Amino acid sequence: MTILALDFGGTKHTAGIVESGVTQWSAREQVFSPPNADARYDLDTVMALGRRLLAGAQPAAIGVSFGGPVDAAANTVRLSHHVPGWENIPLGQLLQDEFHAPVQIDNDANAAALGEHRFGAGQGFVNLFYITISTGVGGGWILNGQVWRGADSMAGEIGHTVVDPHGPQCLCGKRGCVERLASGRYMAQDARQRLYENVLQESTLRELCNGNLESIDGVMISQAAALGDKLSIELLERSARGLGVGIGNAANLVNPQRFILGGGVTKSGERWWQVVRETARQTALPEVQFEIVPAALGDDAPLWGAVALAADCVHN
Amino acid sequence: MTILALDFGGTKHTAGIVESGVTQWSAREQVFSPPNADARYDLDTVMALGRRLLAGAQPAAIGVSFGGPVDAAANTVRLSHHVPGWENIPLGQLLQDEFHAPVQIDNDANAAALGEHRFGAGQGFVNLFYITISTGVGGGWILNGQVWRGADSMAGEIGHTVVDPHGPQCLCGKRGCVERLASGRYMAQDARQRLYENVLQESTLRELCNGNLESIDGVMISQAAALGDKLSIELLERSARGLGVGIGNAANLVNPQRFILGGGVTKSGERWWQVVRETARQTALPEVQFEIVPAALGDDAPLWGAVALAADCVHN
Repeated sequence: MTILALDFGGTKHTAGIVESGVTQWSAREQVFSPPNADARYDLDTVMALGRRLLAGAQPAAIGVSFGGPVDAAANTVRLSHHVPGWENIPLGQLLQDEFHAPVQIDNDANAAALGEHRFGAGQGFVNLFYITISTGVGGGWILNGQVWRGADSMAGEIGHTVVDPHGPQCLCGKRGCVERLASGRYMAQDARQRLYENVLQESTLRELCNGNLESIDGVMISQAAALGDKLSIELLERSARGLGVGIGNAANLVNPQRFILGGGVTKSGERWWQVVRETARQTALPEVQFEIVPAALGDDAPLWGAVALAADCVHN
Repeated sequence: MTILALDFGGTKHTAGIVESGVTQWSAREQVFSPPNADARYDLDTVMALGRRLLAGAQPAAIGVSFGGPVDAAANTVRLSHHVPGWENIPLGQLLQDEFHAPVQIDNDANAAALGEHRFGAGQGFVNLFYITISTGVGGGWILNGQVWRGADSMAGEIGHTVVDPHGPQCLCGKRGCVERLASGRYMAQDARQRLYENVLQESTLRELCNGNLESIDGVMISQAAALGDKLSIELLERSARGLGVGIGNAANLVNPQRFILGGGVTKSGERWWQVVRETARQTALPEVQFEIVPAALGDDAPLWGAVALAADCVHN
């Protein structure tokens, strides 16, 4: 039984073909999207990619991870925060018409949670929360072995839980959201601002960015911290503390067995992990047990989740 | 079919008899516990109360709300924070041996959530969070129409989620927990401290307590606020803001349809409700929909939840 898995990202798309029960790709390919792409362009690109990988074979089912809010019950995209034209697009139906196979779509955080649950660091754990800490911060729940989407398919938004109402202002309008403190984009923004405002502040970041402060990103901050840069270490510790409070709060509220962390910021070294774990442990009540572990599937977690979504289309 | 519902509280216990399908008590009685009571005493008291209400009738099932952490799967009490001797007591088995009927126990917050879901403000809503704001702050989830207990039966602890890491110190060791800001006991503690420290501060509380600051409690603060007392209004607004952030965070994380609020502090007037609702709305993302409504069953919510637990014993 052939499964087609699709991952619509903000800047790149991935398709994979896998035989049911096999945990290795028969084929897998990634394409980057031009900056001016719209929904039509991305849809055509991904459909062509799927057709090419299938090479005439008929898929038994299609699973889709979409990088933005979806209505999983209706199999429609709500919108994309990165690409115009995705408002209320019936992505499930369009793919079903094209490939003549049942389709299930979900957002990327839920898909990644399901991928880690079935094939990665969440195997054997029926209650878990997957969190990606990357440009932004998002999350997906597995409860009783199923994706928990909530009443409006909006569950999992740990990035916009408030952990410090006196903290820095987030684009969402609030202060001290987990994403505002923990994400790579905001850490980079804060680093740039500190270096612009204080031209005498020494920082390895100045060398790493070759004097172009605008090019500072989350990866550079992790690199500078590894080299002992004080500013980068300070920002990463604040990131880890903010996320740790968010995780401890989620543990107290929902009491899952595992938190699985993925995304670029999780590659910032042992100290970042230590502060996340210590802060989460201090925030949760002593009786609330949990582990915090790294994701196992890397950037492919959503695509493996799409495989699981497709498999469930056939079995359920 | 006769159901026996029992509610073990910290200072009072309630038993009720109801015929299956009927939403009025055939009999209901409450007893207060002396300050030096232990588990043995409370158990004997409640068993005697149950026997008296049953008057020789055989219950088809027994549901129990317990005011402290339980292991619902094992039907055992973990401990009581108020009464000694409850450590690892097999309450379900003891009641089953006494009354020869199946028993299901749960903690009071979960029981109240279930009670409101089946018989109160949560009827028709399969995804909800019940929160009691009283001496302490606790919560219980209904997800997909079932009590969600979490991996260690510890889910729902919104009272010890952190909403202000720079806030006042909580007995749990953290700062700015929802319970530290929102509960009646802590508001009373803060009022007393302010009036002790500043003997010139005018406050209606001084008259209401007849000069005995130690007698100030949450009810008195609500009364003083209704009379326009500035200190009491300030403490109640802080309570409402802290709870509102906690509710908004829970909405972003789990996305239930309804939050149902019970407990003494919810009787503090329209202004308190308004600040809770506004703060929760500002904290949740715009796409996350929810309502915040008052509980319908008052102090009987856990006992009605015990009825539902018992009914499920028979049906499942």
